[in-house]
Amino acid sequence: MEQQQSRPLDALNAARHKRVIVDLKNGKQFIGELKAFDIHINLVLEDAEQRHDGQTEKKMGKVFLRGDTIIAINVSEQ
Amino acid sequence: MEQQQSRPLDALNAARHKRVIVDLKNGKQFIGELKAFDIHINLVLEDAEQRHDGQTEKKMGKVFLRGDTIIAINVSEQ
Amino acid sequence: MEQQQSRPLDALNAARHKRVIVDLKNGKQFIGELKAFDIHINLVLEDAEQRHDGQTEKKMGKVFLRGDTIIAINVSEQ
Amino acid sequence: MEQQQSRPLDALNAARHKRVIVDLKNGKQFIGELKAFDIHINLVLEDAEQRHDGQTEKKMGKVFLRGDTIIAINVSEQ
Amino acid sequence: MEQQQSRPLDALNAARHKRVIVDLKNGKQFIGELKAFDIHINLVLEDAEQRHDGQTEKKMGKVFLRGDTIIAINVSEQ
Amino acid sequence: MEQQQSRPLDALNAARHKRVIVDLKNGKQFIGELKAFDIHINLVLEDAEQRHDGQTEKKMGKVFLRGDTIIAINVSEQ
Amino acid sequence: MEQQQSRPLDALNAARHKRVIVDLKNGKQFIGELKAFDIHINLVLEDAEQRHDGQTEKKMGKVFLRGDTIIAINVSEQ
Repeated sequence: MEQQQSRPLDALNAARHKRVIVDLKNGKQFIGELKAFDIHINLVLEDAEQRHDGQTEKKMGKVFLRGDTIIAINVSEQ
Repeated sequence: MEQQQSRPLDALNAARHKRVIVDLKNGKQFIGELKAFDIHINLVLEDAEQRHDGQTEKKMGKVFLRGDTIIAINVSEQ
Repeated sequence: MEQQQSRPLDALNAARHKRVIVDLKNGKQFIGELKAFDIHINLVLEDAEQRHDGQTEKKMGKVFLRGDTIIAINVSEQ
Repeated sequence: MEQQQSRPLDALNAARHKRVIVDLKNGKQFIGELKAFDIHINLVLEDAEQRHDGQTEKKMGKVFLRGDTIIAINVSEQ
Repeated sequence: MEQQQSRPLDALNAARHKRVIVDLKNGKQFIGELKAFDIHINLVLEDAEQRHDGQTEKKMGKVFLRGDTIIAINVSEQ
Repeated sequence: MEQQQSRPLDALNAARHKRVIVDLKNGKQFIGELKAFDIHINLVLEDAEQRHDGQTEKKMGKVFLRGDTIIAINVSEQ
Repeated sequence: MEQQQSRPLDALNAARHKRVIVDLKNGKQFIGELKAFDIHINLVLEDAEQRHDGQTEKKMGKVFLRGDTIIAINVSEQ
């Protein structure tokens, strides 16, 4: 029955082409425009930058993130 | 036979649109309104905030949480 | 042949509606009435409390526990 | 071809109703009578006790152990 | 529906024969020309070098990287 | 094509009834006669002993080892 | 489409009977002649030696390595 209702991937789909904030298990954070995702929560971000403790560490362009390193994805309008 | 009885996902389904408290493996806690979940226990919370040691760290809006980082979900009426 | 004999999930099934003690990988312990479980050992406990080093830390009401964080479930009559 | 020969689960099957010693990834040890197991190596022990560094820490009655926390099961006659 | 749109592996496919930067869970970094990948995100890099804290540690020639050790792949034109 | 050639499990099969040395992720080592294995690399050793830093810690008789705790199996004639 | 192009396992197949260097998650390194591999990246090396920090620690003969402990395999001609 929960299938007929909203699913978590719907929230990622609605966030396509918007900027999202991704928290990784290693404490790092990536911010970028969500270009693609799959059921493993592998992501591709564009115009990405990597942050640590709120500081921009690196500008990275286009980045593939492996889903199993991800804790949370903030899909609010940034 | 256990299939005919209540299943764990039923408890998540009953908590839809209610505020839940999610404990993660990294010691952080998310609180928000449960909008969506799937069989991997991926969740979407709305009006979410992140806490650590009982302190609100961040207000986050809408957040996708990857299921494999979750320890416990308190689905009691908050 | 081991299928025809008692299986581990049978022990969980027999513990439904009884109080169980759950040890997690992070050293925490949950105690509550077992309401539901599935093949991943996801559990729902009711009237749950969380303990650490034998001390009650929190009363939690109804709680969903993700199976992969569980080490042991004491299903003896409490 | 290895299928026609002895398989690891055969050794667990032969140990049913005997006392086994289970070493967990967190350094703890459970000893008890093996009542049930499955292909995930989930176990149920009866008259179980938990040890640490060779010391009995707790008598536990009937205990369900999740397979992915197990390192080794000593199935020698105890 | 997300299937009809761009998928994460498309970004890897577009990066074939280009230099990519791979961040591993152990803090190491590999840089090399992406020759092959699969759905597990196993990669083969050619003319690879391994870095740590921005320093070249080793020149390695052709290297197979197991997907489950990968955090991020920078697929921007290097 | 690699299927037509030698596969890793062939090496385990050839080591049946011989003494093998098993290195575990927790730094421990088991030595014993390989009686059984399966595709998960679950093993059963007979006349096993457990070592740490080259020292015999325990004589253990017959032991079941869960595959996911294993790093390496030395299948050379001991 | 990436299926029609070179796949990561092709690189392992081309390295059969050649010496490869395998980096493990625990910081150890194995060097030996690649005899066999499978889709889990389980490997068998012959004339293997184990190194740590560039030092030969052990000569080991024939060794089975479980795929999930592997980070990288240097398949360049050694």
